[in-house]
Order: sequence, then structure tokens, then C-alpha cells
Amino acid sequence: MDQQFASDNYAGICPEAWQAMQEANAGSAVSYGDDDWTHRAADGFRTLFETECEVFFVFNGTAANSLALAALCQSYHSVICAETAHIVTDECGAPEFFSNGSKLMTVPAHDGKLTPGAIRAVARSRSDIHFPKPSVVTITQPTEVGTVYTLDEVRAISAVCRELGLKLHMDGSRFGNACDTLGCSPAEASWKAGVDVLCFGGTKNGMAVGEAVLFFDHALAFEFDYRAKQAGQLASKMRFLSAPWVKMLETGVWRKNAAHGNACAQRLMGAIGDLPGVGAMFPVEANSVFLRAPEPVLEALRDKGWRFYTFIGGGARFMFAWDADPARVDALGADIRAAALG
Amino acid sequence: MDQQFASDNYAGICPEAWQAMQEANAGSAVSYGDDDWTHRAADGFRTLFETECEVFFVFNGTAANSLALAALCQSYHSVICAETAHIVTDECGAPEFFSNGSKLMTVPAHDGKLTPGAIRAVARSRSDIHFPKPSVVTITQPTEVGTVYTLDEVRAISAVCRELGLKLHMDGSRFGNACDTLGCSPAEASWKAGVDVLCFGGTKNGMAVGEAVLFFDHALAFEFDYRAKQAGQLASKMRFLSAPWVKMLETGVWRKNAAHGNACAQRLMGAIGDLPGVGAMFPVEANSVFLRAPEPVLEALRDKGWRFYTFIGGGARFMFAWDADPARVDALGADIRAAALG
Amino acid sequence: MDQQFASDNYAGICPEAWQAMQEANAGSAVSYGDDDWTHRAADGFRTLFETECEVFFVFNGTAANSLALAALCQSYHSVICAETAHIVTDECGAPEFFSNGSKLMTVPAHDGKLTPGAIRAVARSRSDIHFPKPSVVTITQPTEVGTVYTLDEVRAISAVCRELGLKLHMDGSRFGNACDTLGCSPAEASWKAGVDVLCFGGTKNGMAVGEAVLFFDHALAFEFDYRAKQAGQLASKMRFLSAPWVKMLETGVWRKNAAHGNACAQRLMGAIGDLPGVGAMFPVEANSVFLRAPEPVLEALRDKGWRFYTFIGGGARFMFAWDADPARVDALGADIRAAALG
Amino acid sequence: MDQQFASDNYAGICPEAWQAMQEANAGSAVSYGDDDWTHRAADGFRTLFETECEVFFVFNGTAANSLALAALCQSYHSVICAETAHIVTDECGAPEFFSNGSKLMTVPAHDGKLTPGAIRAVARSRSDIHFPKPSVVTITQPTEVGTVYTLDEVRAISAVCRELGLKLHMDGSRFGNACDTLGCSPAEASWKAGVDVLCFGGTKNGMAVGEAVLFFDHALAFEFDYRAKQAGQLASKMRFLSAPWVKMLETGVWRKNAAHGNACAQRLMGAIGDLPGVGAMFPVEANSVFLRAPEPVLEALRDKGWRFYTFIGGGARFMFAWDADPARVDALGADIRAAALG
Repeated sequence: MDQQFASDNYAGICPEAWQAMQEANAGSAVSYGDDDWTHRAADGFRTLFETECEVFFVFNGTAANSLALAALCQSYHSVICAETAHIVTDECGAPEFFSNGSKLMTVPAHDGKLTPGAIRAVARSRSDIHFPKPSVVTITQPTEVGTVYTLDEVRAISAVCRELGLKLHMDGSRFGNACDTLGCSPAEASWKAGVDVLCFGGTKNGMAVGEAVLFFDHALAFEFDYRAKQAGQLASKMRFLSAPWVKMLETGVWRKNAAHGNACAQRLMGAIGDLPGVGAMFPVEANSVFLRAPEPVLEALRDKGWRFYTFIGGGARFMFAWDADPARVDALGADIRAAALG
Repeated sequence: MDQQFASDNYAGICPEAWQAMQEANAGSAVSYGDDDWTHRAADGFRTLFETECEVFFVFNGTAANSLALAALCQSYHSVICAETAHIVTDECGAPEFFSNGSKLMTVPAHDGKLTPGAIRAVARSRSDIHFPKPSVVTITQPTEVGTVYTLDEVRAISAVCRELGLKLHMDGSRFGNACDTLGCSPAEASWKAGVDVLCFGGTKNGMAVGEAVLFFDHALAFEFDYRAKQAGQLASKMRFLSAPWVKMLETGVWRKNAAHGNACAQRLMGAIGDLPGVGAMFPVEANSVFLRAPEPVLEALRDKGWRFYTFIGGGARFMFAWDADPARVDALGADIRAAALG
Repeated sequence: MDQQFASDNYAGICPEAWQAMQEANAGSAVSYGDDDWTHRAADGFRTLFETECEVFFVFNGTAANSLALAALCQSYHSVICAETAHIVTDECGAPEFFSNGSKLMTVPAHDGKLTPGAIRAVARSRSDIHFPKPSVVTITQPTEVGTVYTLDEVRAISAVCRELGLKLHMDGSRFGNACDTLGCSPAEASWKAGVDVLCFGGTKNGMAVGEAVLFFDHALAFEFDYRAKQAGQLASKMRFLSAPWVKMLETGVWRKNAAHGNACAQRLMGAIGDLPGVGAMFPVEANSVFLRAPEPVLEALRDKGWRFYTFIGGGARFMFAWDADPARVDALGADIRAAALG
Repeated sequence: MDQQFASDNYAGICPEAWQAMQEANAGSAVSYGDDDWTHRAADGFRTLFETECEVFFVFNGTAANSLALAALCQSYHSVICAETAHIVTDECGAPEFFSNGSKLMTVPAHDGKLTPGAIRAVARSRSDIHFPKPSVVTITQPTEVGTVYTLDEVRAISAVCRELGLKLHMDGSRFGNACDTLGCSPAEASWKAGVDVLCFGGTKNGMAVGEAVLFFDHALAFEFDYRAKQAGQLASKMRFLSAPWVKMLETGVWRKNAAHGNACAQRLMGAIGDLPGVGAMFPVEANSVFLRAPEPVLEALRDKGWRFYTFIGGGARFMFAWDADPARVDALGADIRAAALG
């Protein structure tokens, strides 16, 4: 099909990841992660993040985030998160399943973001035994609506977590996009800002499959390997999950891919920013544009063959992956223009 | 490293699977399984198995078996299985985790096999509420010790399952090897023999990652898609899990790969069958040889660089994958001979 | 201590329940519910509810509601409930724990009540696999804020449940109070209005411990005995849980106790209804009064030794059990009056 | 019915426990355990055990043991226990349910007992990630077959637990009987012998309902209150669970009741010890006799109206509670004699 921007999961495998899989496919390798590629990939993360973090490779984001949260919670604990968090809206109860019952305490979010005040309010609202004890705060970076927490915002959230004895988890399924937007290093965007555990997404970044779970606090990683194994997240031929990471990190393409997606979002905004009646629902800070537009405009786009998810109140989401074709972005922009002015 | 036979997970991706991934990597595709490759793969299984089965693709065998059993059980049910079953010995409690507590009722096994009598004995041993109600029987085909149930044996187990109201699940992580040994069709080896649910292993068969769960009874597949999603087993870029299956099935290489592994096991046996003091611990009927040998012989093999898992009582496991090099098998045979005669 | 109205759990065992325990304590009885008292209690419910329902006895309301919901859900399902539902606010994640992950889908509630429209809105909001499939609606009767659904309201909710293929569960921890308010029979208040499963509370009704779970649809009760056993809710000396029910039902004291609590709530309202600046936060329809009052008034009450839970916005909850002393209710009324006029 | 000895759960509430409930039923009391009776009961345990242990009250033994083990395990851990352990044979998968998957590693038991050697063997058998990591050892004292570990045996097991980094849990559903047999203090029988967590059974000891969970290591009790609440084991009118303990402990009847049951078992043995063809299957060291007898003898007993559980190989279990009538024990002895000599 013609390229679509309904999801950055529509993209395939980027050349660097592909090349790594090809190289990894030479000969025998020890299974279950005790192979050279996996060791190199883990070391690659340690180098990139400038710290001796613990690194685990799992199959997808559902598992990465749910397992990480389960490692930070007992079943009677709760997780403080934005009401728009992916783990709340799109994981079919996976966090509750992996943790055997940890409750997600959702708080209203502005532009998809949690705030220190909202965190404090819910964490301090109750302290009796009938209320699941808050154990962890999770933020998505970039958020599900395409905004990016500033480093100051992350630091402020981290500070309130420290104050309240909560751990800080970052769902970084598009972590690379955030680093590009912030113009900072991965270390600055994560542990230096107070993040305890980061789920770094590989799939949306250009890989076939696979996410990395990084524990900056070693104690929190205790027995995470057992946890992942029991939950069906230990690959037997691990090298095919880990080798792509080696190349993604070594070549810097993790960042290049992200920057390309971000640029395409800006490119679309550049093409439609002056239009009357349509616009961005949220600040465009990563690789997505949530287009606010009247239903006839959306209908016209559908008629031209564009696919997109819609949201209450008239929004349409467009997401740009590593492979987004600028010409195709321009075509989308032109079609939006025609529809809006039509 | 030089090719090793410690596990058939040491092998890489076979050419057909690789080719499929390459083709699948062209352009955009809808995510989460609503793409052409995934539809083709599911249809491919229906064609191969000559029936309109329900087909799901998950990441690995831990999840395939555990999710399938969870779909057949409530938490207060039990699963009847051989004490040597992989789900008992090597899954770190995954079946109990996915099912939230279904107990594995192990029975002694001869040559890795369950028998109708043993199943009936445990199923009828208790009927009070303090005993988790048996709901399903699982058999591994080929077994964990490299033997293969005859079709008559499977049918007899299936008959006792029907009699007792139990479902029959088959762990087919090496299902292709069993088909080759039995010289029968996949349909004959599964639903025609009374199997309700089959986990067909792709990884050991030559793929990078991925197993297929086949429900021959549609009712049992009800909402399995939700179950897999919640448990972190729904791939966003599903095409890379499903495309290899398309080629594996269409080309028949699923069977060719299995036959090659089986032949290598026989090749090794041919090379060492006459030796005094060493021999096969179990009938060699699939792609593995469990070598019974005195510790000095095993030590000599280790000294020559061979890797293998050992078992109580002096056994060493060798497994042959699609890529096993006959010359390397011969080298192993020669080293065993030298050690045994040494 | 002087009688307090902070909770109807502060009350003891009513004479009829006590008498039943005393009688049940004569001699030996078969354990785990296969005794005469338990059979009589189950039959008593069938008589009272004029139907051959399935009846189970568990220890407390946490378990009754959580187990009932777990019986109506798979882990990837969701439960539609009011944001004020006890299972949401005060069970420390028990429903998620017993069900291994079923998500509670909360909807805003007016006077503690769900509406057909709100149920339909959430049930129809999504139908994709990333959203846990709604399976059951739960309503609390009387609600957590002391209001009572009319029979028409229950029927309307039941109708939308039938329309959408959802089961209807009623948390009746104070079910007797609702029957008294509605002036209807237990059958009319439950299955005749479309309720599939009712948790009938014994503890707040005057027993030491124990709730009954009633399934009006036999199919839904399938294997619930196993479920309760596994979850630690099967009493070995069951007669002491069931015998009190026999007397509560046979004597009609279940209703008399409830009526007394309701009357005390009205008594308090009669004493304070004319006061300026204070009043009921919600219609007083059962055995509780949520007093809206300025903080100085609440402070004055505390100073006089009254205990109560407080709510955001200045509310104080008072609940009246079977043993509420009218003179003590009057004393509370007088103290509120003095404080309000003070 | 005439008194039966099929189970010590057939007995009612002993006078001291009854008296306590009656006293506790006077007036109002704060709910959920923040009442005087509950504080006194917890202090009573601390006094009896001569240590500042943490004490929790739950409804039954299923929950007490399962919750305690869940507190000592993560889901990917395992519990080492005798194959005859009650948690293995008669809890319908409750330990796996409460822990969300911790596997019970059963080892063959002689006279119902674990040994240090067996524990070490299973704990050291594997150390790879596919094998659930042993975390705790559980022993039942007295055992399920009516034998009692000597203090030396408990100490030896405790020593191997310390050596291997395992916690030691004691299922003491009949703990009082063990203390009587050993002629030692509760402290000597538990923490002084190295037990970390003890579940002290109240129900079989003469109460209506209720078990105490004692943590001698405070760290292990961390957040156990939340765990119990979420799992439906927090009583609202807690005083009725705790008050009986106050009297049981203060009066010493916990021990007197146990001694009576033990004496009745010896009384039965005294009456039948000389008979040919029948005898005890296991040393009679607590309140049960497992009678080995030919089927015609058992049939004759059934014909005379005796109820009992039978075991493979021809055994019949008789258990004596606090209320066992010596004359009735003698009648049983006489009937066994008649049947054996018949």
C-alpha cells in the first residue's frame, strides 16, 4: 500500500537494523542471551547512557513497561500515571496482569503530562490500608499526544518522587524522539534527570521487534531476568533481538531515525500551519501531529485514501517513522490544505 | 564459534525465513496483524492442516504453551503432564503465572511419554474441592527426551481425554520433527488424532522468533487475541513474525529442516551405535541424542570443546537443527568414539 | 467506648445471629459446608428470594464482590462501575487481584449512581483489542453515598446490560437497607429487576462475619466453589458462617435491622433538617447521612468526641447500624445543632 | 450426629473462645483491627512467644499459609515442601494463586517430614533462569500424617535454610499439638529453632474461625497488612477474630485443648496397639491416628457408622479435637477391635 501515517508501527526495519540481523545470522550462537551480540548490545547501552546500568531485552512495549512496573510494585501497590498514558488506554489490562493487581491511579493530564502537584495530590490523598499504596510514577516521553517533557519538568517530577518515596519509570517507546527534541544526551534525558527505569523502544525506532529495559538503580533490577523469563519474554535466539541494537546505537541511527520522524511532523505543520479551521490539538514536539479539523475535512482525507486514528472532538493522528517519505508528507499536507479550503 | 549441538536454539535463521523477512520489509504494512502477510500465514496453516483452524502468532514457546493452557483452564484447574515436560522443568513457573495458579499435576513418564492409564489415574484420584479440577492434558511431541508418540498413542490419549472431559494440548516446539518421524501429515499428527490445541514451534524450525498457536476447536480460541495482547504477546510489526511462516509452509522447508535434524541424530547414532559402554538413553526418534556415557567420556568431550547439557546418571544431550553440518556431526561421532575407546 | 456512628462495622452481633451461633455450637458437624446449617441457610435464601438460586458463603465483602466479579470476567475483560464504587475506592486493588487483571472502568456518577447512558458510552467507546472488553456492570445498592436506585433505575440498567451482552452484578453489602427503602421483596430488588449476581452483606446487617453470594443464573455459578476454595474463602467450620443466616432470614431480622438503621438516618435528618449552613450532601435514602458542614462545625463535633470519616468539600459520614441507640442519635443531632448555631 | 473423628474441623467452639466472643460483643468497637481486643491478642502472642513478633489475623489456614508464602516469594520463586504437605495436596492451587505463580517444589517425605538433605538436593539441583529460584522452605508441624519434628530436626532444617539463603515457614495449623508433644514452649518450637514465619491455627485449636500469622523477622512482615487486605482477609469486625485468641492464650487453653487431642490419639492406640493385622501407619505423635487396616475392617467400621478419610494402601484417618469424648474414643477402639478380630 501507499505509505500511511496512521502509526509509526507501519514502518519496516531500517537498513542498519537489517544489516545487524544479517551479520548475526552467521553461524551458531549460544541461546538465551549468553552470546556476543547480546553482551555488545548491553554494553552499547552502558556506553550511550554513560553509566553501568542493567539492561534487559524483551519483545515489545506492552511487556517492557508492564514488567518494569511489576518489578517496582507489589500487587497491593499503585502506579501513578496520566489518564492518557498508553498503559492505561491501550494495553488491555497488561500492567494489572503482570503485577497481579497493581492499580493504575490516573490523574488528569494537560498536554499528556503529569505534574508534580498532581502526583503529590494523589499520593497524599489517602494513607489507609484500603487504598493501594503508591509505589511508582510513570511518565511517557514523548507523551502519547506528541508533547515532550522538558528536562526541568522531568527533574521536578523526579524531585517529588524522591520526596514521597516513589520510583520514577519512563515509558520511552519513542525515547529517541524526545532526545532529539530536547537536544540532549540519553543520560541527561533519563538518569541524570532522576529516572530510575527506562523502557527504550526499538520497534518504533526502526527495528523489527524488541525493547530494552534499563535499570539505572541496580537494586531495582534484582531478579528481573527471572521475571522476564517467567512472563514469556526471554528469547531463545536472543541475538536477533540484541544485534539490531548494537548497530542502532553504534551508528547513531537511533537518533537519526528519530530526528527524521520529528522533522516530518514539523514539515507537515509547516505545510498547514496557516490554514483556517484546522490546527494542532497539542504542541507538536515529537513525531506526531494531532490534527484538529472539522469532520468534513477528515472525511475528505479518508476519501483520498488516508488512514488515521480519530479522537473525540475531531482529531486525527498522524505519526512519522524513520521511513516517512517527505514527498508523501507533502502530499498529505496538500490534501489537508485542499480539504480545509475546499 | 564452531558449530555446537547443545541446543537447536543455537542455529540461526534459515534462508527461506530470511527471504520472507526481506520481502516483508518492503514498504508500509498495517500493524498488529491486520496485514497481508499475517493473513497469508494463517491461511497457510489452514491449508497445511486441511482445516479451518484458528491461528495466532506469539513470540516464543514459553508464551505459546502457557497462554494456550491458560485458555483451557481457570486458575483452580489443573494440567496433567509428564514429570519431564518442558513446562514443568524449564519454564520458571510460566504456566502458573499466565493461568494465575493452575497446578501442573505431574505423573511419572516412561521415555518422556504420558499414558492413558496414568492420565486416568490422576484424573480420577480425587474429586473433592480441595483438589484442583483437571481440565487439560498436555503432551510434548516429540518429547523432551527425543522420543515420538505414535499416532496410536496420541489417539489413545485423546480417547481418555474425551472420556474424562479433558482437553488435549500438544506442545509442538519441534512438531515438524515428529511429522517427519511419523511420516504423516500435520493433520494426521494433530487434530485427526484428537489434539485440540497445538503449539507449532517456529524458532527451532528455522525462524528467528515466533510460534503459532492453532486451535482446532474454534470455541477454545474465543478471545484468545485479547489474552495474548494482555500478556504482552501481540507484535506491533506482526508481519515480521508471520511472513517467515508463509515461506516455511509454502516451500515445505518446515518439514525439510526437521528431516535434516532427525537425519543428523540418526547419523550420530550410526557412528557410535556399536560402541561399548555408551549408548542412547532413550530411543532416538527425533533430532536429539541423549548419550549415556561414563563421566570420563563426557569429560573428554568437554576437553575437545564440545558443549552439551548433562543429566543425572551420566547423560549428555545433543540436538541437531536445520543447519547441522554433517561433517561436524561426524566429528562429534569420532570424538565420542575416541573417548569411549580411549 | 460510647456508641459511634463512623461505620456500621462498629456494631456487634445482633441477638438472633448470636443465638444461631450458640445453637450451632452444639456437638459435631461436618466441615466445609456439608452440614445441616449450611444447607438450611442456602435454602433460606432460596425461599426468601423465591427462586432456585445458587448460594455461597464467604468471609467478607472484599472477597464476595471480587470473587463474583472474577467469576464473570476473564483477566482481559473490564468491569464498568461508578467512580465512587467501593470496589474502586476502598478495596486496595482486590478486584484486580482476584481476577488477575480485569480493569475497572470507572464512570462519573451522580449521587453515587451509574446510568444506562454512561454504561453504554463506555461500553461502546472502543471495540479494539487494546481495550479490555467490558464483561460486567456492577452497581452498589444502596450506593456508597447512601442513595438507593429505584427499581426502574435498576431495570433500565439491566436492560442496557442485556442489550450490550453484559452481566449485572449488585454489591449489596447493605442490601437489606435498600429493600426497606424500596418497600419491595428481595426478589423484586434483585433478579426480578435483572440482577444476575448479588452479594448480600451479612456483617453490616448484624452478623459477626460473612457474606452470601447469590447467582440467579446457574451457569454463572459454575465451579464457584472451587474458585472460593482456592482464594481462601472456604471456611472449615462453615456452620458458624451459615447458621446466623438461618436465623437472620427466618426471623426477618435482616429486614428489621436494616429498617432500624434507615430510621435512625431519618431521625438524624429530622433533627437537623432545618438548620442553616448544614445539610445532607446526598439524598438520605438508606442508613447513612453525609453531612455537609463547615469545617468549624465538624471541628466542634470532633471536640465533643464524635468520630466520623470526612470527605473532600466538607462532608462527614454517619452510619447507623442495627444497634444504633436513638438517644445517641438524638445526642448527635443536638451536638450538630449546637455546632451549627454556635 | 454422634461425635465423629474424621476431622478436627468437626468440633465446635471451645468455652473459652465462646466466652471471649460474648464479651467482645458488648457495645461498639472500631473496625478493621484498630480495637482493644485485637491489640490485646497481638500482645498476647508477643508475650506467649517471648518476642516482639509481628502478628496478623486472617480467616483460615488456606489464606494464612498462602499469604505468608506469597510474602516470602516473588512469582518466579519456588517453595520447597514435602510431597505430603497440605499446601500441595489440599489447597486447590491456593499458594500458586496468592503468589501469582510460585511453584511448589515437592520432595519425597518420610513420615511426612522434610530433611536437610532433601532440601539441599532440590535447592542445589539447578541454578539457571529456567528453574524457579527457591526462596522458602515450608514444614508442617505436626505433619499431615501426625508426626512431630523434633526440635533438633527443625534446627537442622533451619540451619540448611540459613546456609542456602532460604526462609523457613511453619504451617502450624495444629501448632499447639506439637508444643504439647515436644514439651516445649512456643518460642522454643518456633523462632528459637529458626522458624521465620509461623501460621498458628486457631480453628482446629477450638475457635470458630481464624488463624494468626506471626513474623519473627520484622522485615518479612513489611506491608503484610496491605497484602491481607487486598486478598480479602481483613475482617471488618476484627474483634470477633481476635478476642477468642485473647482468652485462648491467657487461659492456656490453647495448650490444654491440644493436649487433650493428643491424649485421645494415645488412648485409641492404647486400645488397639496389640491387635494383629492393624496398626498405625505413622508414629502417633499428635492428635491423629492413621490406621492401617484391611478393607474388611474399614468396611465394618463404616457399617457401624464411623466416618473417616481413607488413603491409598488401606489407611483410615482419625483425628481428635479439643472436644473428643473419651468414651466415644473408647467406643471407636472397641469397634476397631471387634472388626479386627471379627
